[in-house]
Amino acid sequence: MMAGMSDESVSTRPPGETPRLATPADASAVAQLLFDFNHEFDVASPPVAVLEERLVALLNTEVAFAVVAAANPTAVALITLRPSVWYPGPVATLDEMYVVPALRGHGVGSKVLTAAVEECRVRNVGSIEINVDESDTDALRFYRRHDFFDVDPSTDEKAFYLFQDLV
Amino acid sequence: MMAGMSDESVSTRPPGETPRLATPADASAVAQLLFDFNHEFDVASPPVAVLEERLVALLNTEVAFAVVAAANPTAVALITLRPSVWYPGPVATLDEMYVVPALRGHGVGSKVLTAAVEECRVRNVGSIEINVDESDTDALRFYRRHDFFDVDPSTDEKAFYLFQDLV
Repeated sequence: MMAGMSDESVSTRPPGETPRLATPADASAVAQLLFDFNHEFDVASPPVAVLEERLVALLNTEVAFAVVAAANPTAVALITLRPSVWYPGPVATLDEMYVVPALRGHGVGSKVLTAAVEECRVRNVGSIEINVDESDTDALRFYRRHDFFDVDPSTDEKAFYLFQDLV
Repeated sequence: MMAGMSDESVSTRPPGETPRLATPADASAVAQLLFDFNHEFDVASPPVAVLEERLVALLNTEVAFAVVAAANPTAVALITLRPSVWYPGPVATLDEMYVVPALRGHGVGSKVLTAAVEECRVRNVGSIEINVDESDTDALRFYRRHDFFDVDPSTDEKAFYLFQDLV
């Protein structure tokens, strides 16, 4: 569907393919995309209904938003915000980024990510963070191409992501 | 001051040394600690007054808290919360963790971090995240000892932290 579209402008896209902010009415479709994402990569996921309920709550707040492509979403970027002492505005985390397999390689992900970064600017975000698996070279290349650093220019080194699950 | 204290219990500490939640009244002292942290590691920092103003705002919300040690804080862990679609509660980021140089090596950091993790449990946090520089082997060892993973047990690999500053 996106094949042959080579320019970066979204304004010439048919309305149904223009990246747009998700509303709580998209929660069901976005939940399915996130569930499919986990399924594709063999990661355990809460049921779609649980994800939908949480997305409805999230998308009704000022501290989360999602950018989707197409009226019936075929791609999603989910971003959550937290406060920061280092910037006047919040810090954003790109928690999830998914394009349905059939539409990959046609720039859909780039358009969705670009729109998500623009929405971060509108919301006065100071910095956007992403955690990427060491072996996921495609994702690392994709994000580097979109101006995300894995090497901090001020320290000239990489940082690891550590976590502790409490539940 | 902390020398010779070898047990892990905080209940026997004198009141002034027990880790406690910071209040907005601690913002000035915490701002100075964060500023000193950046200064020690040669990282640019907003002025103390700006950090203090932001901390007053943060510590008056439900989406940030700080644990400090001693009445006149000598150590701080600053944690911010964001919503999550993967857990019933929020995800926490340990944004900063600092112990004044004179008190290092006496378990102050361990007590403050342990108290911060406990506070996360109270707040129904699903997961706590930390970003640690690749070369900071002391910090990596410290966090591993406190049950933070750098290798995801479900994928058996590390994840990198990427970012894009917008300001």
